[in-house]
Amino acid sequence: MKLSRSGQKMSDMSGLRSIMEDVATSTASGASDWLNLSIGNPAQIKEVIDAWRDLTATVVAEDFAATSSRYGPSRGMPTLVEEIVTSFNAQYGWGITAENVVVGPGSQMLFFIATALFSGQTADGSFQRVVLPMTPDYAGYLGLSTDPDGVTGIAPEIELTGDRSFRYAFDFEAVERCPEVGMLLLSSPSNPTGRSIDGDELARLVGLARRHDVPLIVDHAYGAPFPRVAASRVAPQWDDHLINCFTLSKAGMPAERVGFAIGPSRYIRAMVSFMANSVLHAPQLMQRVAARALSSGLLDRLAATVINPFYRARRLYAERLLADLLPESVTWRLHAGEGGMFCWLWIDHDWFDDMALYRLLKTKKVFVVPGRHFFATPASDATAASHARRCFRISLTADEHVIAEGVGRIAEGLLELRRSS
Amino acid sequence: MKLSRSGQKMSDMSGLRSIMEDVATSTASGASDWLNLSIGNPAQIKEVIDAWRDLTATVVAEDFAATSSRYGPSRGMPTLVEEIVTSFNAQYGWGITAENVVVGPGSQMLFFIATALFSGQTADGSFQRVVLPMTPDYAGYLGLSTDPDGVTGIAPEIELTGDRSFRYAFDFEAVERCPEVGMLLLSSPSNPTGRSIDGDELARLVGLARRHDVPLIVDHAYGAPFPRVAASRVAPQWDDHLINCFTLSKAGMPAERVGFAIGPSRYIRAMVSFMANSVLHAPQLMQRVAARALSSGLLDRLAATVINPFYRARRLYAERLLADLLPESVTWRLHAGEGGMFCWLWIDHDWFDDMALYRLLKTKKVFVVPGRHFFATPASDATAASHARRCFRISLTADEHVIAEGVGRIAEGLLELRRSS
Repeated sequence: MKLSRSGQKMSDMSGLRSIMEDVATSTASGASDWLNLSIGNPAQIKEVIDAWRDLTATVVAEDFAATSSRYGPSRGMPTLVEEIVTSFNAQYGWGITAENVVVGPGSQMLFFIATALFSGQTADGSFQRVVLPMTPDYAGYLGLSTDPDGVTGIAPEIELTGDRSFRYAFDFEAVERCPEVGMLLLSSPSNPTGRSIDGDELARLVGLARRHDVPLIVDHAYGAPFPRVAASRVAPQWDDHLINCFTLSKAGMPAERVGFAIGPSRYIRAMVSFMANSVLHAPQLMQRVAARALSSGLLDRLAATVINPFYRARRLYAERLLADLLPESVTWRLHAGEGGMFCWLWIDHDWFDDMALYRLLKTKKVFVVPGRHFFATPASDATAASHARRCFRISLTADEHVIAEGVGRIAEGLLELRRSS
Repeated sequence: MKLSRSGQKMSDMSGLRSIMEDVATSTASGASDWLNLSIGNPAQIKEVIDAWRDLTATVVAEDFAATSSRYGPSRGMPTLVEEIVTSFNAQYGWGITAENVVVGPGSQMLFFIATALFSGQTADGSFQRVVLPMTPDYAGYLGLSTDPDGVTGIAPEIELTGDRSFRYAFDFEAVERCPEVGMLLLSSPSNPTGRSIDGDELARLVGLARRHDVPLIVDHAYGAPFPRVAASRVAPQWDDHLINCFTLSKAGMPAERVGFAIGPSRYIRAMVSFMANSVLHAPQLMQRVAARALSSGLLDRLAATVINPFYRARRLYAERLLADLLPESVTWRLHAGEGGMFCWLWIDHDWFDDMALYRLLKTKKVFVVPGRHFFATPASDATAASHARRCFRISLTADEHVIAEGVGRIAEGLLELRRSS
């Protein structure tokens, strides 16, 4: 089988790909004894699921023919695009129009499209990269480029914020030295750490994007205005070099693939064209559901009164569990945060290796995600590579007894790893 | 704005893109006075819409939490993949397993993925193209490649089959001479002509794919086993160099973006990985709907007893209209066919130009699709280019009075074009 260069890259097992395989394994019938602390699935909150199901049933009953039986515009259904315009202008005082919005079949596809548009070979023979200004960041970003060297990440600085806690900081000098920038991309609040960018940091990254004349893409999958899984330190901003991406996934509809981007029309126009050429448009029934959830205030209400409190409480629960169950004699640290879908742990020992823990925990029927999948620092950066191999991510979205049992087995695993080293 | 080479290509207005823009214009509020004979939307058949709506409502009521609130495998929901395996093995005697199936958010995305995997620059520096073995073919294929020269088409031979009818034939010698083949792709029954490949032709193309060791992709969007919009001369076949693609779009669910490919596991595995890296997976609620429509026999029943008879009748209606309304003094010919969503017309005069007709008809509030968008023959082939500019496509899916009024305005347009030349 002859694959193209892009084909060889894209048929490789990326970090995200291995997560998806784990999902497939753990959700296969008869595999319910797995403790899955690996996946990015939002929690199954009954009130959230019921609300989306009822709204979807209403839309099926009232709008099915108008939504499902006709192709629509690649930009998105006008009813949803208009609702986004109205909602974001009202909430943030922007002056956007439909020209500033594109809806996609999930925000991952929007990142994929932006990567293809803004990175890779240029007409003049130069090469532009997707730069992640602070790693660790979402593992799925690493699979976005069809080019083997298409995505690069900047290692963070580390601040110790307590005996058992730490926090990453931007290494702005390294970000500003980085060559061949085609696009800047980050999640905020971040997957995996829950860290939110603040206003000064955002302004500095926007300034850099402007100097390079490239877009900065901020992925708000966990933040404001919805789903508010984690706390945002700064509201989404408007800038002529900024594309903001939002998704319904963590607001309870991960499998229905509705996300959207808001940005300058020159960027959005190119993204709409790419959509038309590749995937035509996002599924429409759920676009209509999303429009209604925005206009009725359902999305805001779920985010503020159900989802946000749920994850705040869940995070506190997990913090207590980790403090109670992880071995006192192991130097473990948790990335500081408030809410969020994950705990990001750093085990600061020579004997620790993220892949070794991953493999060991699979023998105990527990899935976690090895830390290295969230970094894209060059292999030549030995310090960064060493830190990456000392981290792992656990999800807070499984039932509490699953998390408790899983953390217990992680504690056992850490002791076994240390013994066997 | 600095775009990559791929970005420049993909943000261009492809043939499909201009169709989508027309869709957006014509479906915008207050624009209902357009006669849209341009789009590939399936007909709004009440019995079909009602059946899908009722099934969707059932799935929302019974399976919502299990489908919509959890990410799923990139290959597709196991319940749908298993239903596809069972159904195609039973119907065609294949011995496929889940390894041979991938579900995507529409078949366009599956073609896009295959194009990225199998065409473009290879690791050894050579270049492989998507080859359309007979043009005209689906306009959307031309936008699939991120490379400006990524898709090439072979001009057809033309057989006159009556005073007012003609039929294309494969120019197999030209297909077999074609260099740099990375993948072969065709729709059968074809968009725009309705022409179906026969068993001998398919065997010859499969043989060529095998000699090049590349996949032949057959797009069954209009054919068997569903939706049966047009007649298939040969059932889908299994071969080690053949990928068959199917979609729900023309069976009544165009906007919900569910398609799937069946082929050798080495090809399908690469496509699944690409899915994981780009769009994660197809929307799941409609995957569950599709699984139920397959297992219950609904899809078969709609295709055989509603959709197929509808388009046979609609085609006969259009043939009578064209014969009654188009000017006797103009040499127009209709591509031979049975059923199908389109009429493909050839106006064999020096004064005719497809873009001139397109523009003229837009002043009369009628959309048709200029013929040239369905060809991808090199500009150096003057004979082929000249034929391409003498064709256009009209859709048969609008209401009968819209088609009748539209054909009437087309007749006027032809006379005006001739006068002004």
